[in-house]
Amino acid sequence: MRAAMRFFSDNAASVCPQVMEALAKANHVDTAYDGDALSERLDGAFSDLFGKQVRALWVTTGTAANCLGLATLCPPHGAILCHEMAHIEVDEAGAPGFFTHGAKLTLLRGEGAKVTPETVEEACHRVRDDVHQVQPAALSITNASEYGLSYRPDEVAALGELAKRRGLGFHLDGARFANAVAFTGADPADLTWRAGVEVMSFGFVKNGGMNAEALIFFDPARAEVVPRLRKRAGHLLSKGRYLAAQILAMLDKDLWLANARAANAAAAALAEACGAERLLYPVEANELFARMTADEAARLRALGYDFYDWGPGEVRFVTSWDQDMDDVGKLASAIKSL
Amino acid sequence: MRAAMRFFSDNAASVCPQVMEALAKANHVDTAYDGDALSERLDGAFSDLFGKQVRALWVTTGTAANCLGLATLCPPHGAILCHEMAHIEVDEAGAPGFFTHGAKLTLLRGEGAKVTPETVEEACHRVRDDVHQVQPAALSITNASEYGLSYRPDEVAALGELAKRRGLGFHLDGARFANAVAFTGADPADLTWRAGVEVMSFGFVKNGGMNAEALIFFDPARAEVVPRLRKRAGHLLSKGRYLAAQILAMLDKDLWLANARAANAAAAALAEACGAERLLYPVEANELFARMTADEAARLRALGYDFYDWGPGEVRFVTSWDQDMDDVGKLASAIKSL
Amino acid sequence: MRAAMRFFSDNAASVCPQVMEALAKANHVDTAYDGDALSERLDGAFSDLFGKQVRALWVTTGTAANCLGLATLCPPHGAILCHEMAHIEVDEAGAPGFFTHGAKLTLLRGEGAKVTPETVEEACHRVRDDVHQVQPAALSITNASEYGLSYRPDEVAALGELAKRRGLGFHLDGARFANAVAFTGADPADLTWRAGVEVMSFGFVKNGGMNAEALIFFDPARAEVVPRLRKRAGHLLSKGRYLAAQILAMLDKDLWLANARAANAAAAALAEACGAERLLYPVEANELFARMTADEAARLRALGYDFYDWGPGEVRFVTSWDQDMDDVGKLASAIKSL
Amino acid sequence: MRAAMRFFSDNAASVCPQVMEALAKANHVDTAYDGDALSERLDGAFSDLFGKQVRALWVTTGTAANCLGLATLCPPHGAILCHEMAHIEVDEAGAPGFFTHGAKLTLLRGEGAKVTPETVEEACHRVRDDVHQVQPAALSITNASEYGLSYRPDEVAALGELAKRRGLGFHLDGARFANAVAFTGADPADLTWRAGVEVMSFGFVKNGGMNAEALIFFDPARAEVVPRLRKRAGHLLSKGRYLAAQILAMLDKDLWLANARAANAAAAALAEACGAERLLYPVEANELFARMTADEAARLRALGYDFYDWGPGEVRFVTSWDQDMDDVGKLASAIKSL
Repeated sequence: MRAAMRFFSDNAASVCPQVMEALAKANHVDTAYDGDALSERLDGAFSDLFGKQVRALWVTTGTAANCLGLATLCPPHGAILCHEMAHIEVDEAGAPGFFTHGAKLTLLRGEGAKVTPETVEEACHRVRDDVHQVQPAALSITNASEYGLSYRPDEVAALGELAKRRGLGFHLDGARFANAVAFTGADPADLTWRAGVEVMSFGFVKNGGMNAEALIFFDPARAEVVPRLRKRAGHLLSKGRYLAAQILAMLDKDLWLANARAANAAAAALAEACGAERLLYPVEANELFARMTADEAARLRALGYDFYDWGPGEVRFVTSWDQDMDDVGKLASAIKSL
Repeated sequence: MRAAMRFFSDNAASVCPQVMEALAKANHVDTAYDGDALSERLDGAFSDLFGKQVRALWVTTGTAANCLGLATLCPPHGAILCHEMAHIEVDEAGAPGFFTHGAKLTLLRGEGAKVTPETVEEACHRVRDDVHQVQPAALSITNASEYGLSYRPDEVAALGELAKRRGLGFHLDGARFANAVAFTGADPADLTWRAGVEVMSFGFVKNGGMNAEALIFFDPARAEVVPRLRKRAGHLLSKGRYLAAQILAMLDKDLWLANARAANAAAAALAEACGAERLLYPVEANELFARMTADEAARLRALGYDFYDWGPGEVRFVTSWDQDMDDVGKLASAIKSL
Repeated sequence: MRAAMRFFSDNAASVCPQVMEALAKANHVDTAYDGDALSERLDGAFSDLFGKQVRALWVTTGTAANCLGLATLCPPHGAILCHEMAHIEVDEAGAPGFFTHGAKLTLLRGEGAKVTPETVEEACHRVRDDVHQVQPAALSITNASEYGLSYRPDEVAALGELAKRRGLGFHLDGARFANAVAFTGADPADLTWRAGVEVMSFGFVKNGGMNAEALIFFDPARAEVVPRLRKRAGHLLSKGRYLAAQILAMLDKDLWLANARAANAAAAALAEACGAERLLYPVEANELFARMTADEAARLRALGYDFYDWGPGEVRFVTSWDQDMDDVGKLASAIKSL
Repeated sequence: MRAAMRFFSDNAASVCPQVMEALAKANHVDTAYDGDALSERLDGAFSDLFGKQVRALWVTTGTAANCLGLATLCPPHGAILCHEMAHIEVDEAGAPGFFTHGAKLTLLRGEGAKVTPETVEEACHRVRDDVHQVQPAALSITNASEYGLSYRPDEVAALGELAKRRGLGFHLDGARFANAVAFTGADPADLTWRAGVEVMSFGFVKNGGMNAEALIFFDPARAEVVPRLRKRAGHLLSKGRYLAAQILAMLDKDLWLANARAANAAAAALAEACGAERLLYPVEANELFARMTADEAARLRALGYDFYDWGPGEVRFVTSWDQDMDDVGKLASAIKSL
């Protein structure tokens, strides 16, 4: 099957050429772990991007980035509020429980996997402030959300204010943060620290990277213990420069944003083809969730298209940074012809 | 500083060209996680190497490989016997405690960081079999050892027999297993499963890889839960094919062995230059621990050589797969001239 | 305030005289920990009660009993299915996460805090069988439930069959098991092992004990590791005979059942006074949840009665083994007069 | 066997009458958990004893007290320095690893299970300050020590100063603190907070209590999270007043000290009988470790005395608060006659 026919997952996409070149260029001796010249540039590169002094560490997976971050916000006896469809709840195999030594995820409901101040407030209100009940310690949101919706700056800020008032740490799962920035056109700062986010995972792998994600602390003091936690979790690579190289290549000339725009554009084209009646949610990133009968799905598959069965009568398409727009156009036509 | 002048750590070395080529060749869409064509070849490749059906999983660090392996051998309330200089004790930031949920490392003494049946027996004997004392559950050795000594097959087998008799799981930290195989000339099977080893980490990063290590279970049934543990620890990479590609490239035509032989040869040349009176231990892999006054060390450093101060009056040289033998010869001469 | 006026919690009640006598009688030297003559009688006493060879251990709290039991049924990477109002979820401060090293509670809905086969099946069905999702490993129910409802033998059996089919361990929180047996008149065996329950906590403290609860394993082999887990959690008391004495005194001549019957009778009298329109749930144990305006509650309190505000317009009464029936009658009249 | 003939363990002794009376007197309804009148007096009672505002919590075992205390001093990624014979290392089944979520015990050597500033300094010095090595976070000593030696105030103070300088939390295992105070005649304050101790377990069970120990924080702010940790570990008893009652009875009129003096006097009498050549250590509390041939031990046992075989040619006698001095005298004579 040709790559261009795959709309299954952005995790399956190839690595973009600039990243491959950066790996080749990094291929010489340097200090081990994160003492190399490239790793030492990470803090600065992200500080430039966010317009604020931050602390940035590489890790190899979003799960590690999310859970190391959460471990700094929530003690073992605390709770993390998140959407019931949150990746940390649904798709990380219990990693939050592992990294936090047993903290609890308290699940919130809401359309499109988005968290609202109301659901957070309600969840906090329900907890008696005594030693018998696990007290909320942190809030985690995903932007773009697990259903491909992008929070706007004011939505994040409303959650940030509430988190502050309630004494909750505020974490952002940014596996597809690039797609949210590309879609909203917002300043990355407005979607994060200016809106109260304290820690985020910044995804690169789904967006053209090979195996490097960034864990960002907007208050560098908060990150002090993280290098130890990272090492203790087996996530301190000895040749860290090959991770730093990937991230720096993606940040260079805003490649991360260009890639996300390409993926979003492909999704938008498919969304247009689907039409409002098929779409379960507006398409605000690089994922589409659409109503489709089993027969319709079979017909698309017979044409060579690969995608995910989401639920009965529902399918998911995910577009990638390297999606060929001709192929996208053909799939769009095929969908229209169903 | 030229790479060739660095004798600080094999972790700092570059990635060998065959691995870089394999990464480039793997750069196309494929199934995410470890469902890709390359990852699926790992079991077979290692089964061929060891002459036995094994289960092999990629991870990105030796710490993760060691600790995921140990987690299958030792319950949270058990103890792992290891040398007091073992990497898992000294250099993994408490990762064994993290991955095992609090198991204990019981430390053994012995020359050159090597474990003997006597020290294991003595440690087991000391423990009362009651609920107040933590019971030994596993034995872990490192080959080549943290002081660059290589266990011979019969040494491993003696430990394996004892482990079996005592009901201990048997783990091998093989961060420099290649160097031990290269030095002893032993069949990898004789240093592992035929000698009773049940789980091992097989190191590639120090030997020319970029960021892929292998975790090998000689009884595939024992590995059943490991994919879950790996994911839960944030170690399931979404583009796993780029790890599998590295390992397969290293296994191809025994590149792993050729690289280790090169590193060992460089070490042997330096060992010859040092002479027995300088050496703290025989050189049986790619590390040298040598007596050297601060003044002597300073003179070598003035010539541009980089190495590690091990202790007062002691230094460590580590050679890598890509060490230039001309440079090695010059350093050897410089040492002789001290 | 006189004790008889308190309907706040059975945790606040006094210790029954037979338990106090048993403590006095046990007050002589004996072997420490659980090697004493009384502790050694526990297995036999519970085996007689249940008509089956069981393994029984004392602990001091229901939380410890529940969580040590759950730790044998669910690995750190698994999930325990329970009602969203379950004590282990709502009132144990995250202890299940602590004792299981991070396992997850998957919450079920249902009337009166009761679990049904449908909710269990639905929760299992929702989980993809892959490494990304936490797999259900155990089912936990509470009998009598957190809303004072008693499961009947066939209800437990239906859950037990499903648990077996789904490969789930089956745990029973029996903090008020005595009240459920007293209400249903069922054979304890029919509410437990004959219905598939594998592990239970058997509560005594709410029923007249001082600080001893029992942890029962219906398959003694399953309990093998538990003495270690108990010690590791700091729950192995050095003078364990004073716990065993309490439990044996409660089992003697079915004092546990007599006490539960007394508490249930008091609750039944209040239930009759409340009438169906006030009651949120049928009263099937020693707890009542009733609709009551703030004004009505204030009037009862002005008469000297102590009880819990459950929610807006809702109150909870709990009756104890030592409730004076005259006082109960007076409260019943007062409720009727509201 | 008569109780008086038992010199096996102070854990086996009976409960003293004043404690039994206090339990009887506490036997009426009161608020559950630790909201009762007796529990609320604990802080004050210990504050009086120590001449300083402290926070005191009851728990049922020394293991729980020690490990809850240590959990406040040492993060999961830290190390606790303690003697290699420390109870927390040797006899708590890995509980420190459980309560701290995997912290490490770094073992110190030294005569009579006593820790010295030199051994602490040496252990700290050995650790590189990088992310690969587990950093020391706390120091724990036992007074009286596991070999029955009592630290003097200046010895504790020297360790306290070092702990402060090194940034280590300072924990005292006071399972036999009463015996140390009785032996040294020191002010309890001088053996604890004035000497830098921050957290201690204060033992009562070995000294005449039934199942109540105290966990003391000399800085109440440090204790803030502990009620949650206690509950999460299943150590919050619902009828806590029966624990508080025991402790208050022991503190009343310094019963704890009188009991310890009685036990120490019995030990001193046996020590005199043994003579210096038999004793492995000076007797400074209620334990004796003595050289004794198997034949000699058998002869004492034939006379009805019960004690512990410590090692080849070594025995241990432990005396209790209720030891009959006539029996002690007879055992002393028997030892002299060996």
